[in-house]
Amino acid sequence: MSTSQSAQDLIIVDGLIISNFSRAVFEDMRKGGLTAANCTCSVWENFEGTMRNIARWNKFFTDNADLITPARTTADIRAAKKAGKTAIVLGFQNVSAFEDQIGYVQHFKDCGVGIAQMAYNTQNFCATGCYESFDRGLSDFGHEIVAEMNRVGIMCDLSHVGSKSSEDVIRASKKPVCYSHICPSALKKHPRNKSDEEIKFIVDRGGFVGVTMFPPFLPKGNNSTIEDYVAVIDHVINIAGEESVGIGTDFTQDQDQAFFDWLVHDKGYARKLVDFHEVLNPKGIRTIGEFGNLPVAMEKAGWPETKIRKVMGENWLRVLKEVWGA
Amino acid sequence: MSTSQSAQDLIIVDGLIISNFSRAVFEDMRKGGLTAANCTCSVWENFEGTMRNIARWNKFFTDNADLITPARTTADIRAAKKAGKTAIVLGFQNVSAFEDQIGYVQHFKDCGVGIAQMAYNTQNFCATGCYESFDRGLSDFGHEIVAEMNRVGIMCDLSHVGSKSSEDVIRASKKPVCYSHICPSALKKHPRNKSDEEIKFIVDRGGFVGVTMFPPFLPKGNNSTIEDYVAVIDHVINIAGEESVGIGTDFTQDQDQAFFDWLVHDKGYARKLVDFHEVLNPKGIRTIGEFGNLPVAMEKAGWPETKIRKVMGENWLRVLKEVWGA
Repeated sequence: MSTSQSAQDLIIVDGLIISNFSRAVFEDMRKGGLTAANCTCSVWENFEGTMRNIARWNKFFTDNADLITPARTTADIRAAKKAGKTAIVLGFQNVSAFEDQIGYVQHFKDCGVGIAQMAYNTQNFCATGCYESFDRGLSDFGHEIVAEMNRVGIMCDLSHVGSKSSEDVIRASKKPVCYSHICPSALKKHPRNKSDEEIKFIVDRGGFVGVTMFPPFLPKGNNSTIEDYVAVIDHVINIAGEESVGIGTDFTQDQDQAFFDWLVHDKGYARKLVDFHEVLNPKGIRTIGEFGNLPVAMEKAGWPETKIRKVMGENWLRVLKEVWGA
Repeated sequence: MSTSQSAQDLIIVDGLIISNFSRAVFEDMRKGGLTAANCTCSVWENFEGTMRNIARWNKFFTDNADLITPARTTADIRAAKKAGKTAIVLGFQNVSAFEDQIGYVQHFKDCGVGIAQMAYNTQNFCATGCYESFDRGLSDFGHEIVAEMNRVGIMCDLSHVGSKSSEDVIRASKKPVCYSHICPSALKKHPRNKSDEEIKFIVDRGGFVGVTMFPPFLPKGNNSTIEDYVAVIDHVINIAGEESVGIGTDFTQDQDQAFFDWLVHDKGYARKLVDFHEVLNPKGIRTIGEFGNLPVAMEKAGWPETKIRKVMGENWLRVLKEVWGA
């Protein structure tokens, strides 16, 4: 990575961004050199609310065509790299938008959704989230939804899903599934963090792990640095191997308190599930625009170039191609 | 019950009817002498679909004001008795209509819904139905919904709910809950039937049991008679006591095969949950219009008049008043 030429070649994929999307954020994506990002377009919304969000995204694509482009295949992502744009993968953090309709899975695939989390923090028709008192496992309807997601090519994400439900989805899915944005509980106990056993379980079955830098999940919290983040990624690589690990920052750039209040209440308004207080991203990568510092920090940590390239983006592209078929 | 005068005084409450409602059915309710019935207005529908069904019911009330009247209190039911009409309690067989909105519980109470089943056969946001592979128990959101149903006065029904979820609701609810239409599994093994222990558990905690005559749940199936039905009710009374038992026929009068197909598939269209084939109600009470034969059969079975009056309707009125407050 020592020459500017190879840095320009670098594919950077962020497995999870839930920022307050705007032209300013898209400009920062370009500044940070992002090739592609899984951008959340649904958390608590139902079918109609999510379709409205996607309509808003389609206007984003038109209005900001110089900066971003929709990604439905990994070929789209490689083409975006060549064109100097950021490819946007629309993603769900919950399957609430599918409501009770298996047929809606195809609708959303057709509208550009490439990844969907099976539950967000609590129980839905399909699975149970990580803040629910009891993880109920994948429901029978959930099995039908996983099969349909496999069929149409939407990746199952399990980051906010409970342990038993995650295990059930990992076993049920015929295509690779992922934790798109998690930290290891070995380094910091937290209901959202995953044990070394859980990390090993998913990758042993062809799955994938994106490592987050959301401060509440990091050992040093708001006092973390980009070097600390690289060390956390290395912990995961030591368990999962360098082929099955990628980035999933969980950037919440430009979001306000009202947004966090909505996130941390069940359905956006019911009982409170968790408290986050102030969130300050690791020093060196506080904003999306600083993304370019990450491969530099990896290099400083002694990572060889092949490992940097894989973890920064090539691994995500490989596994997404397996799920999407192109 | 030996004089026609006392038969005219009899309060008859049916804890569950899911017929193809029409003026013909309402005429049959009058013929059968029904004072009140819990009439299903939602099974798989969401908020909007259920509001449409209730709008249709409101037109029924206007167009058939000589036969039926809406019931929001037990005083409404006693007034209907005096007026020679059948009081209609609108009921849900699923909480799908609440969607993810606790606030919708009050909306439906305001629109006349007096009873709602916590799950229909499978898993929803709140609870797990009796045909789901694994009963997951009441979810945390389900606890919030039960508390809100308690607050506004909608009775929790558990007939199609799984064993663990039912236990959780019975423990969580601060007002009496019911199995509105069940048979004892001691007499016929079936996923929908309840064990003697389950029947005892609900009544020991102030709950209520309505006994159904839906043939697949009866020991003799389609060969049952009204006398067999009375014997099944007596089995439940022997466990629950004659204060906590009522009628809940599950009349599906005038429904066609398409309706049953919709009922027996998850969400109305997904995987098939159960097969019922032809359904023939017990001889002597094949139609709602024959309801008057039931107290006669009870009398023939040697029941004293007080027991007949309680089980035919007074018990339902007492427990509904406890839940509704009026």
